[in-house]
Amino acid sequence: MNLAISFEDVTRAAETIAGVANRTPVLTSRTINRMTGYEVYFKCENFQRVGAFKFRGAYNALSRLSEAGKKGGVVTHSSGNHAQGIALSAKLLGISATIVMPTDAPQAKMQATRDYGAEIVLYDRQLKIREEVSAQVESERDLTLIHPYDHPHIMAGQGTVALELLTDVPDLDVLVAPIGGGGLLSGCSTAAKAIKPDIQLFGVETKTSNDWWLSFQQNRRVHIPPPDTIADGIRTQQPGELTYPVVRELVSEILLVSDEEVIEAMRLLLTRLKILAEPTGAVALAGVLNQLEAKPGAKVGVIVSGGNVDEGLLATLLKRG
Amino acid sequence: MNLAISFEDVTRAAETIAGVANRTPVLTSRTINRMTGYEVYFKCENFQRVGAFKFRGAYNALSRLSEAGKKGGVVTHSSGNHAQGIALSAKLLGISATIVMPTDAPQAKMQATRDYGAEIVLYDRQLKIREEVSAQVESERDLTLIHPYDHPHIMAGQGTVALELLTDVPDLDVLVAPIGGGGLLSGCSTAAKAIKPDIQLFGVETKTSNDWWLSFQQNRRVHIPPPDTIADGIRTQQPGELTYPVVRELVSEILLVSDEEVIEAMRLLLTRLKILAEPTGAVALAGVLNQLEAKPGAKVGVIVSGGNVDEGLLATLLKRG
Repeated sequence: MNLAISFEDVTRAAETIAGVANRTPVLTSRTINRMTGYEVYFKCENFQRVGAFKFRGAYNALSRLSEAGKKGGVVTHSSGNHAQGIALSAKLLGISATIVMPTDAPQAKMQATRDYGAEIVLYDRQLKIREEVSAQVESERDLTLIHPYDHPHIMAGQGTVALELLTDVPDLDVLVAPIGGGGLLSGCSTAAKAIKPDIQLFGVETKTSNDWWLSFQQNRRVHIPPPDTIADGIRTQQPGELTYPVVRELVSEILLVSDEEVIEAMRLLLTRLKILAEPTGAVALAGVLNQLEAKPGAKVGVIVSGGNVDEGLLATLLKRG
Repeated sequence: MNLAISFEDVTRAAETIAGVANRTPVLTSRTINRMTGYEVYFKCENFQRVGAFKFRGAYNALSRLSEAGKKGGVVTHSSGNHAQGIALSAKLLGISATIVMPTDAPQAKMQATRDYGAEIVLYDRQLKIREEVSAQVESERDLTLIHPYDHPHIMAGQGTVALELLTDVPDLDVLVAPIGGGGLLSGCSTAAKAIKPDIQLFGVETKTSNDWWLSFQQNRRVHIPPPDTIADGIRTQQPGELTYPVVRELVSEILLVSDEEVIEAMRLLLTRLKILAEPTGAVALAGVLNQLEAKPGAKVGVIVSGGNVDEGLLATLLKRG
C-alpha cells in the first residue's frame, strides 16, 4: 500500500526543526518501573515549545510552504495545541495565521494562541463541523489550510518524537502514544518501525473517544458523535484519511482507558515524576498502567504528548483525590 | 580560615553517589529568559531520588560511616526531605534509621519516610528544640546522629549539585540557591568557586525565615524564633556552625522574598516549565525574579531544590491564583 509518508520524510523533518524545536529529555521513574514491571521511558513533549509535540509538525509544514503560500497566510482548526504550534511557527517564519477553535477549548490554550499573534475564529462544536468552518475561512480569505493531522508534513514532523526517543533508547521493545487524529502515531510508527522493525506500537484513546478502537474492530474509518472526554487533545470523531492506513498497517492495537485512569496517570506524573502533563499527555501512561500486556521487563516508551492544563482544572483534579 | 569542606570532598562525594543518585537534567525556558533578561538554567533536583537534593548528602554521609557506625544505626531530625534521603540511603546500604520530625511536617513527606522503612519520632516544634530531641534519641538508643546540614559529608554531598551544573553549563555567571541550614549552599559554593572563581553566589530565604540575612547583617550567627513560612524546607532558626563560615566567605549576598513571590514562582515552574517544585524548590527562582541584580544576559543557575508537595496544598495554591 502507498502510505502518505516515509522514514525519509521524518528524517527530513528532523533536519528542518533542528535548533528550533526543543530536543526534549527522556525521564524515568523507579516507582513507575516497580508499579508496571517494565522499564518505562517517558519522552517529555510537555517540555516542547508551546508545551506539546504539535510544534514539530506545525513548524515542518509551514517551513515547506511555497513562497506564495507563506505570503498568503495559513488557517487551521484545532482544540488547542496544534493551534499554538501553528501560531508560534507562523510568528517565527513571518507568516500570518488564522485559527478555528471550538468555543469550549481550554482558556489557557486560547490565550496562548492569541499571545503568539494569531487570529482566532470560534465555532460551536455541537452545531458545526470544524472542517467545514475552516474550509469556509480558507476559501473566503484565500488561505492555505494546514490540517492538524491529515497532512504529510504534519505527520512527518510529529514522527521526530519517535526518531529522537529511539536515538536515546535504541532497544525499545514497545512504544505507546495517545491517538486522536493519528498525526503523532502515524509519524512515530513510521519512524519507529524503520529504526527497529520488531518494535510493538500501541495507540491509546479514552473509552468515550473510541473512533480508532472501533475502526480497528470494523476495519474501516468509523465516525462517532462528538466525544465527551477529559482528554481534550483526542476529541476527534474519525481517524484521518491519510493517518488511518499508516496506523492500521504499523500499530498492533488500540487500547482504551477511562477518564479516571487518565486523571490517576496525571497525578502519578505530577507527584512521582514531578512533571505536569495535560490529560491527553497522560493517556499513554494510563494505557501502560491499565491495559498494556507486554513481557515483564520490557523497555516501554511512553509519549507524554503535552503539558497545557488550565490551573483551575488541575486544582479540581488534585482536590478530587 | 579553616573551612569544613574542600573541593576535593565534593569530588569524592560525586564518586560515591555516582550511579546511585540521579544525574538530574538542566532545563531552560524561553519565557523565563524573556521575563528576567537572563539566561536561566534550572538544575532540577525535584527529579532527584526522594524528590530533593537531600539524597546526595545523605547517601554520601551514610556511605562514609565506619562499619560499627553502620551496624549501630543512625538518627536525624528533619522537616522532611533530609529524612527521606536518610531513610532511602539507609535502606540501600542496609542501615537502620530513626527520624525525628516535627508534628507539622507535610503528610506526604512523613508517609514517604515511613515507606522507606525508617522509624519516625514526632515532636512539637513550638515546645521542643529538635536538636535536643534527636540528641536524646541518639544517646538513649546509641545511634549516630546525621545532622541535616551541619556535617561535612552532608555539605560535600550537596555540593555535587553545583559540580554537575557547572559541568553542564561551565560559563555560569551567577548561581542562586535556597538557604535553610546552609548545607546545599555551602557545598555548592565550595564547588562553584573552585570551578569558576569569579562566579557570584546568592542564597535566598523568605522574609519571615531571615536568619541568614540577619546573620550577614550582624556578622554573627543570629538565632530567630521558629519561622512561619510556606517554604518548609528552610524553616531553620540559625545558620549552622560549620555551614556559616563557608557561606559567609563565598556567598555575595542573601536575598529575601515573600511567601507570595514563592507561590508565584511555583506556579511559573508548573505552568511554563511544566515541572513541580515544592515551595522551597521555587525560592531561588523567586529571588531571581524579584531581587537579583545581575548584568543583562547573565547566565544564571537556579537550583530547584525539591518537588515534594502535598497535593492538597498544591490544589489550594492553584485555586488562589
